[in-house]
Amino acid sequence: MLNFKHAIPTELYFGKGQIEKLPEAVGRYGKKVLLVYGGGSVKKSGLYDTVLGLLEGFEITELPGVAPNPRLGSVEQGVKLCREKGIEVILAVGGGSTIDCSKAIAVGVYYEGDDLWEMVKGAGSVTKGLPLVDVLTLSATGTEFDPFAVITNPATNEKLGGVYIYPSVSICDPTYTFSVSAYQTAAGSADIMSHIMEGYFAHTADSDLADGIAETVLKSVIHNLPIALREPTNYSARANLMADSSIACCRVAEYGKDDTCWPAHAMEHELSAYYDITHGVGLAILTPRWMRFILKKDPSVTWRFAKFARNVWGFDGDDEAALAQQGIDALEQFFKDSGIPMTLTELGIGEEHFAVMASHANPGNMLRNAFVPLTDEDIVEIFKACL
Amino acid sequence: MLNFKHAIPTELYFGKGQIEKLPEAVGRYGKKVLLVYGGGSVKKSGLYDTVLGLLEGFEITELPGVAPNPRLGSVEQGVKLCREKGIEVILAVGGGSTIDCSKAIAVGVYYEGDDLWEMVKGAGSVTKGLPLVDVLTLSATGTEFDPFAVITNPATNEKLGGVYIYPSVSICDPTYTFSVSAYQTAAGSADIMSHIMEGYFAHTADSDLADGIAETVLKSVIHNLPIALREPTNYSARANLMADSSIACCRVAEYGKDDTCWPAHAMEHELSAYYDITHGVGLAILTPRWMRFILKKDPSVTWRFAKFARNVWGFDGDDEAALAQQGIDALEQFFKDSGIPMTLTELGIGEEHFAVMASHANPGNMLRNAFVPLTDEDIVEIFKACL
Repeated sequence: MLNFKHAIPTELYFGKGQIEKLPEAVGRYGKKVLLVYGGGSVKKSGLYDTVLGLLEGFEITELPGVAPNPRLGSVEQGVKLCREKGIEVILAVGGGSTIDCSKAIAVGVYYEGDDLWEMVKGAGSVTKGLPLVDVLTLSATGTEFDPFAVITNPATNEKLGGVYIYPSVSICDPTYTFSVSAYQTAAGSADIMSHIMEGYFAHTADSDLADGIAETVLKSVIHNLPIALREPTNYSARANLMADSSIACCRVAEYGKDDTCWPAHAMEHELSAYYDITHGVGLAILTPRWMRFILKKDPSVTWRFAKFARNVWGFDGDDEAALAQQGIDALEQFFKDSGIPMTLTELGIGEEHFAVMASHANPGNMLRNAFVPLTDEDIVEIFKACL
Repeated sequence: MLNFKHAIPTELYFGKGQIEKLPEAVGRYGKKVLLVYGGGSVKKSGLYDTVLGLLEGFEITELPGVAPNPRLGSVEQGVKLCREKGIEVILAVGGGSTIDCSKAIAVGVYYEGDDLWEMVKGAGSVTKGLPLVDVLTLSATGTEFDPFAVITNPATNEKLGGVYIYPSVSICDPTYTFSVSAYQTAAGSADIMSHIMEGYFAHTADSDLADGIAETVLKSVIHNLPIALREPTNYSARANLMADSSIACCRVAEYGKDDTCWPAHAMEHELSAYYDITHGVGLAILTPRWMRFILKKDPSVTWRFAKFARNVWGFDGDDEAALAQQGIDALEQFFKDSGIPMTLTELGIGEEHFAVMASHANPGNMLRNAFVPLTDEDIVEIFKACL
């Protein structure tokens, strides 16, 4: 087991009705609030009205229209508003994109340079930020319980992840996900699973706690996603998916394990940057192909895939190579059964940009440190297997 | 799944050599340090010298001699020292007793009454405390990652748990547990398992994450304790037990589950208060008897015991009643195989105080809210089954 540090300063209020904590949570930091949200769904659901009702007496400035794969433009707009209005606290109401955008705004307010894209490129060097409270409406990215955010620059087709700040308070009410479409529910669940699998496929073999938590989260998604797809208002299924989302990206499921570089995420960010596809869908398409590729490239990792097949999917047997294949097949079939389009071709994506996408996914040859090292050529091959 | 709140402000530095973080961690809060420790083991191991060497330039006041089942007297002494010396930060070096005692001192400094036992009785009402940094030397109570402490008043034979403060920083280096005796290693592991089992045996059936984490920790202890007993310096085994300790009591393994009142702990505190026995040993003796009693009293909870037998011990089959017994038997045998004396008789304890101990364990009939409600008479019967 390797050394690690645990420190999650976020207060998570989980469950039905926790929105009642909002005025106290926001009020701790001030009265001048930047309210960040996405499209119309929070208005349609009534959550927007609920929030405004609870925050009567606060001075609210709005930043609506944050898009999926949130863009630099929204960050710039938010930073400008914060400075003009003397904002004291940011309130993000929405899913991962809204919260990620808000994290970048929170840090951007203190950024001294002129070009916020430079801040995004160097994320992690500035960690001071305005306090951020969020109300989560989608179980997916885990941003409600981690310091990460991913920002897209449409001008350069770049999508860059980085370390910003933890939310101070996250309000996670599973009922807010009742109205999430089947497609987005499945995509969000693929994102949850990917966060876990990116850390699970590692060399460290003796971190029982991390592996056990990872397997628990995967089994929970495998059990609860089909229920949520059949019965969108099943509280128990929605609650489990939301809890899984938060735990999946907070690194508890990686305690004491070696750093794996998260190659599927690196590759997917290129797909989203070039084609603006849903992050979780890209991950679902890429992950089984990445798995088959690395298993073939380095059969010494078969034991880890066999463990995945046994402990997550319940397969039995002594033939580890066969088990490894069974596990990957089961994962691919699960995504298919969840209604996710499982080829890039179905999304209208061809191979024209694969070479440059591969080099962007592997800056400074970073993926030489992945669980199984990947070259640019390897990445192109994985992209091609997704067609 | 029920509502819950997650907020753990403790920074945990886990692994070999993390002691190097000590000067920075203590120095954040000031230069005037109360160094709290127990008997001679930290001197024998060299840790005491390491700590003093690292804290050169700090103004150190010492409070040595904190006993297992830490006593009110040490708390009083510590509070007095803190006030006299203007202590800014408490540094606890040791196991659960030393850290628990330090938590009560930290809060006691701000207590305005004359009688610190009154503070212990009302713990939870005062939560302001001096900052606490600890260096853990025993995998057991989980106090390094929770706000709880248990203090004993030898004058009244009372041992009371309560909510104090979270440590600000916990340094958890598994190598510091290499020298822990087989007896204390087994007892500490029983404590870890008990924290998990007290929460696991609950009515909520759909909290997949909590149940899965609980089963993971139990399986980890079952796997790693025998290794640590055979090979006391096996880093991997010691590291897993230490990580299990921290996660077991921080309530992550109870997310979304109903409150179970922790009846085995309530009963064990009476054993330790009257007979000063090792907490984990008392828990190991009590737990299988408590399980058999409640299973007989309320067979409707058989499903939970069957789940325990299947997912923790790997038993198969459709006969849930038989499975339930197999799980309990396996637990009892595991404790026996770990070298724990499994009857009160072996510890020289008779039934003379059982009636009054039962009433103390059940103040205000609190255990009517347990997983299976317990009366004073039930508790006496469970104590008797332990003879």
